[in-house]
Amino acid sequence: MTITAAFYRGDKKFDVTQIDSEAPSAGQVQIEVAYCGICGTDLHAYLGHMDARIGFERILGHEMSGVVKSVGEGVEGWAEGDRIVVRPLDHCGDCPACNRGHQHICHNLKFIGLDSQGAMQQLWNVPAHTLHRLPDGVSLRDAALIEPLAVASHDVRMAEVQPGEDVLVIGGGPIGMLVAMVARAAGGKVTISEINENRLALASRLGFDTINPRQVDAAAEILNKTGDKGADVIFEVSGVQPGVDLMTAAAATRARIVMVAIHATKPQVDLFRFFWREIRMLGARVYEPQDYDQAIASIAAGEIDADALITDIRPLDEIAEAFAALTSNPNAMKSLLQING
Amino acid sequence: MTITAAFYRGDKKFDVTQIDSEAPSAGQVQIEVAYCGICGTDLHAYLGHMDARIGFERILGHEMSGVVKSVGEGVEGWAEGDRIVVRPLDHCGDCPACNRGHQHICHNLKFIGLDSQGAMQQLWNVPAHTLHRLPDGVSLRDAALIEPLAVASHDVRMAEVQPGEDVLVIGGGPIGMLVAMVARAAGGKVTISEINENRLALASRLGFDTINPRQVDAAAEILNKTGDKGADVIFEVSGVQPGVDLMTAAAATRARIVMVAIHATKPQVDLFRFFWREIRMLGARVYEPQDYDQAIASIAAGEIDADALITDIRPLDEIAEAFAALTSNPNAMKSLLQING
Repeated sequence: MTITAAFYRGDKKFDVTQIDSEAPSAGQVQIEVAYCGICGTDLHAYLGHMDARIGFERILGHEMSGVVKSVGEGVEGWAEGDRIVVRPLDHCGDCPACNRGHQHICHNLKFIGLDSQGAMQQLWNVPAHTLHRLPDGVSLRDAALIEPLAVASHDVRMAEVQPGEDVLVIGGGPIGMLVAMVARAAGGKVTISEINENRLALASRLGFDTINPRQVDAAAEILNKTGDKGADVIFEVSGVQPGVDLMTAAAATRARIVMVAIHATKPQVDLFRFFWREIRMLGARVYEPQDYDQAIASIAAGEIDADALITDIRPLDEIAEAFAALTSNPNAMKSLLQING
Repeated sequence: MTITAAFYRGDKKFDVTQIDSEAPSAGQVQIEVAYCGICGTDLHAYLGHMDARIGFERILGHEMSGVVKSVGEGVEGWAEGDRIVVRPLDHCGDCPACNRGHQHICHNLKFIGLDSQGAMQQLWNVPAHTLHRLPDGVSLRDAALIEPLAVASHDVRMAEVQPGEDVLVIGGGPIGMLVAMVARAAGGKVTISEINENRLALASRLGFDTINPRQVDAAAEILNKTGDKGADVIFEVSGVQPGVDLMTAAAATRARIVMVAIHATKPQVDLFRFFWREIRMLGARVYEPQDYDQAIASIAAGEIDADALITDIRPLDEIAEAFAALTSNPNAMKSLLQING
């Protein structure tokens, strides 16, 4: 059977072309992909930052939803027509992380859609263990948000946000906005710090307090609104030095800082403040199965405003335009590609 | 009554002089000080780094042991002859930290011996709430180690060191060595990283594995001896950039890093590694009452080799020589002043 697939060819170029689909191997399930979101990591790939890792024969895409088309030998529990999302992690099963139950950060982790072919193709074969079932009430469109939402669910779960706690989210892009929504659903009083006025306006429309640290002293603002206490939980999602400065300056005694952002360089960190206020920091990466379950439940419960986040849907053959728009449009939040249907 | 007291006068100078003792106020206890250790913080004061905070009329000293001489009005539970140590923290009782039960890191904390007069005098009045009783079997000399040992007990308690865990202590000074002892007593397999050969030799004599990061790749060594896992718990006690580099490079997946050191500048920190390996870091400062209880119990149980750590005891009138020796003698660990007796 012939299907359409989009190959990254380097230097912001894609080939959208016809290929022969392969039958699912033993243990695999074949998915008819419905929607696939464009992740920040996909953008990095598009811009050529990951060529050494992904090469020029790569089909990207992991923020997806779809329907089971067929199953390979030995697969039980899945059948044609099942509506699903894929948790795109393939672990080795025998490394120091796997041996301690942290398969999601396996030392030899293969991220499906970067280290192997992804969802920006009409039929996609994945290991059956990566599937999560969608409830009836969740649309395939909204379900494309589940992967980034599971990141946010993981972050908030690791932080153990308690009802009534003051939460600061530094960085109001798609992940920051999802973290804010999940932290609010957990009972946190959330403030978002962001410098992009379009994103600030969206955050306000979504009911969050906002700070633009280019216009005010953000740490002073947080201390002021918390009676000099500071934020109990801080999510650093900005990936820049001013965000790292703010995370310690705005932190309460014994605050928890969650390191969500990917810092390509080593920023300067106020370790004295960690000592002085007994601040805690924890790195949080991708998700575990229960974070997917939580994300699916949040979408099903209507806790996430998908309409506010999905700013753009295009067919797969407009992939080049979709990526180009994301790098230039300051209003863009989450762009989806419609792969089938 | 006339007593001997040592005043810091700035620029490495002390006056050892006679003063009139004052009776203890209401709520205070008067202590006949037996021994007082010289802390790293006292050394900073001696070198002039804290003049703005402490002035030139300050009596230093907080790592002490002594005997109750008399009690002020309203003090119950303490009587002349009680052998005690003082937990030298005076909190405000009404700040965001105190309100949440973290009195030991009160936002307005007064550290007795820096912000008020300390133990390098023969009779010392302190709030009764700062006292901890010594068991019979603990000598007043060894008890002078209880304050720094309580720091180490706090650090190890916060890290939740479990039996069999691989522990790395970065920096083998007095606090690092005490942390190593307490972590070992908790069941940890401890390696000490240190560049001073005298301290390395002492650590070896005490039965610890050692690494000199000037001679070998310390992170590679830790990975090698842990089957590529890395250290489960890391205590950063060095306060220097190479120590901060090592703390992340040697860390296992989900490792806990305890920030014990005082970093006067903001070092560069590998936040990507925090994200990638879901590493956790927690600041740990001074101690809570239970850490004093634990430290006293450890000394009483013989878990701490006091003889190995106490390298020098001098009378109070040799305070200048004692401080000078500490800044120049590479063999020195813990120096005590004998205040009475």
